[in-house]
Amino acid sequence: MTDYGSPLFAALRSAEAPAWSAYVNHRFVRDLGAGTLAQDAFHRYLTQDYVFLVHFARAWAMAVVKSDRIAEMRQAAATVHALIDVEMRLHVEMCAAQGVSEAALARTEEAPETLAYTRFVIDAGLSGDLLDLLVALSPCVFGYGEIGARLAHEAASSNPYAPWIESYAGEDYQQVCREAGALLEAVADRRIGPAPTGSPRWSDLATTFRTACRLETDFWAMGLGGRQP
Amino acid sequence: MTDYGSPLFAALRSAEAPAWSAYVNHRFVRDLGAGTLAQDAFHRYLTQDYVFLVHFARAWAMAVVKSDRIAEMRQAAATVHALIDVEMRLHVEMCAAQGVSEAALARTEEAPETLAYTRFVIDAGLSGDLLDLLVALSPCVFGYGEIGARLAHEAASSNPYAPWIESYAGEDYQQVCREAGALLEAVADRRIGPAPTGSPRWSDLATTFRTACRLETDFWAMGLGGRQP
Amino acid sequence: MTDYGSPLFAALRSAEAPAWSAYVNHRFVRDLGAGTLAQDAFHRYLTQDYVFLVHFARAWAMAVVKSDRIAEMRQAAATVHALIDVEMRLHVEMCAAQGVSEAALARTEEAPETLAYTRFVIDAGLSGDLLDLLVALSPCVFGYGEIGARLAHEAASSNPYAPWIESYAGEDYQQVCREAGALLEAVADRRIGPAPTGSPRWSDLATTFRTACRLETDFWAMGLGGRQP
Amino acid sequence: MTDYGSPLFAALRSAEAPAWSAYVNHRFVRDLGAGTLAQDAFHRYLTQDYVFLVHFARAWAMAVVKSDRIAEMRQAAATVHALIDVEMRLHVEMCAAQGVSEAALARTEEAPETLAYTRFVIDAGLSGDLLDLLVALSPCVFGYGEIGARLAHEAASSNPYAPWIESYAGEDYQQVCREAGALLEAVADRRIGPAPTGSPRWSDLATTFRTACRLETDFWAMGLGGRQP
Repeated sequence: MTDYGSPLFAALRSAEAPAWSAYVNHRFVRDLGAGTLAQDAFHRYLTQDYVFLVHFARAWAMAVVKSDRIAEMRQAAATVHALIDVEMRLHVEMCAAQGVSEAALARTEEAPETLAYTRFVIDAGLSGDLLDLLVALSPCVFGYGEIGARLAHEAASSNPYAPWIESYAGEDYQQVCREAGALLEAVADRRIGPAPTGSPRWSDLATTFRTACRLETDFWAMGLGGRQP
Repeated sequence: MTDYGSPLFAALRSAEAPAWSAYVNHRFVRDLGAGTLAQDAFHRYLTQDYVFLVHFARAWAMAVVKSDRIAEMRQAAATVHALIDVEMRLHVEMCAAQGVSEAALARTEEAPETLAYTRFVIDAGLSGDLLDLLVALSPCVFGYGEIGARLAHEAASSNPYAPWIESYAGEDYQQVCREAGALLEAVADRRIGPAPTGSPRWSDLATTFRTACRLETDFWAMGLGGRQP
Repeated sequence: MTDYGSPLFAALRSAEAPAWSAYVNHRFVRDLGAGTLAQDAFHRYLTQDYVFLVHFARAWAMAVVKSDRIAEMRQAAATVHALIDVEMRLHVEMCAAQGVSEAALARTEEAPETLAYTRFVIDAGLSGDLLDLLVALSPCVFGYGEIGARLAHEAASSNPYAPWIESYAGEDYQQVCREAGALLEAVADRRIGPAPTGSPRWSDLATTFRTACRLETDFWAMGLGGRQP
Repeated sequence: MTDYGSPLFAALRSAEAPAWSAYVNHRFVRDLGAGTLAQDAFHRYLTQDYVFLVHFARAWAMAVVKSDRIAEMRQAAATVHALIDVEMRLHVEMCAAQGVSEAALARTEEAPETLAYTRFVIDAGLSGDLLDLLVALSPCVFGYGEIGARLAHEAASSNPYAPWIESYAGEDYQQVCREAGALLEAVADRRIGPAPTGSPRWSDLATTFRTACRLETDFWAMGLGGRQP
């Protein structure tokens, strides 16, 4: 289990282990890995995830607004670009393969779970600093990396969700995670120094991380149909 | 049924009548008016509403940040003051009467429904202009005024929730609604002019209003126990 | 020379002593204290300071948006209220006494020096956290307190600018400074801990403080007529 | 004289012709076109323009945050990318050719004129909507396009500033202007409709445009040495 080069991420994951585990080991994830996930559940997840990505790209753009080092700005802008021009196109293709057009995607009514997580992250950026924002973003970025890598080991080649798994297990996405890990460390170093758990901000950062994990967990539950828009 | 001096609010309520009705006539509201609401439902609602008010005051402060007329700024600042120094104290008293201390309130874990609505409103302010923000705020402000006024007519004096009903039916809160109506009209006049439904922004404004109604509806459902933090 | 209860402010003032001194001992200030300041310089300063206060109130509202403790929120909101309902009214009265109507004030074209300082402060809040914002605000808040207290000792009773001096030397404004000092300490304690100069953020905080002092110094120069809108 | 495909830009330029002319026909620009501009003036301008670009990229990232259509988001993100990865590198090269290292650039103390314009633009985005932000950005984007195109016609091939002129007269930058024009029109269409001068926002938009022209004019004056950081 990698920390993607970020001891701060490792410390947060360890401190909030129950919330992290509830998220990355959710039934949606296990069913997806086993290939037994109902297609309409995947479909519901995928269309909401498209809306999610739109606002997630806005949150990463907020990271550019909040950067005051050029290297950070460049890294955050590269992520905005990757989300808009790579990951969203990939979604459009996966959705098309499932018979959902881009026009239909654009008409999707945003589920409360999508609203809750994306707006929480954006507000973490508005109310806090760049570190608060990156910590709120991190469960999504690193969690998908960890899930992708794990499921790729387990999943049968006949798994109908193999393209999804491969897209997050693949080198491109794993590299995105390593770069996000490097950015998180650089910003943490400049805002709280080398011993995060001893910082007066530690408890607030852990709460932000845990809340983001909870909202990711709710997002999987929405996919399973626990609630619908 | 008053429009609190705002034809724009009246037009939005009319255009999004099903979402408005689902919100102001929710079972939580009906049970509260009949005095049959379970006490733990009211309690759950009340503690989350305290957390809600904290972020709602932040959203009104965002309205001050976004004002560019002194009269608007003064009005929005007066609302921040009313929320922090009047409404939140009232909540603390009502909670104390129910045996919940302020310290317990401050430790409350924020429910996803609380997160979703408050952060949606704050982001409406960040992404849009002052009008977008006020339209996102308006279902909460005016809806509580309408509910309070209606229930005060219906409720028996023995209703255990009479203090809650009276606080929103009372002249103080109804005056808050009229002032918010005047502010909404002033800002609408300056941003879209006198014929809102003919504005190119009409459809986006109606969507914002409807989403806010949906998230208010989810908030009542949270009170009933449909979901818990 | 008081630190208004904030060792962090004292440390910043000491670390950036040349910029601080250039600001609080500016010729505009000395002439004002001696009563020899040209009336049109005071007049130019006063009309721009009215515009300044509008945006300064917006910056303090940003502090409400960025608060995540109720006590902080209440303190920042009280300052917004004091600026809008007390200090701005005082300005309107002083301007009226000089023959400048409120309508004329509202038509004032904003000078670049007013734009530069106010928008720098607001952006410090957008790009950083609440501590970055408060540090950017502090030269204005505390500097006027220090200047007012010093000039009140020196100024002759016949000084035509005595009302201005008294308004900042007076107990009301000095109390505002002590409350801002307490807020700054509370936020610093929670964001960087008890030893600010050892924090990895120290150098950035000092730069923010110095830039704010420079922009205040430019503001006096604008009053003297170095540049005009 | 092109409007880069934006009748709104043409209307603003026409309504604020004196401010526009003071900006695009500034002595700095004329001397640069004649090749007679003092090298230290160009040098001062160029180092501040590097700092300017950093914050200008942040302002365009704010446009991504404020987009609610994917096409707009993509266009704004492409501009962030162009600024960070193309225009800033170009600056570093031009500065290196003048003997100024990137390390020296990064240490540049920001001039008040740089602070004033960039923070004004960012605050236009925070306080207003996407249209307010784009109107504040437009004098910079289109003005450099117009200046580049005009000087390229006039300038002798021996002009020492030919590389600067060519970079803005060139097809790449002119295409950036046309895309920004298309974006401005798309957003204007959605926020105020097809007749901008009849919109209730017209006067505020024109004021924003004029203020941005004034701050650009101050920026040239800073280059000439009227004020120094």
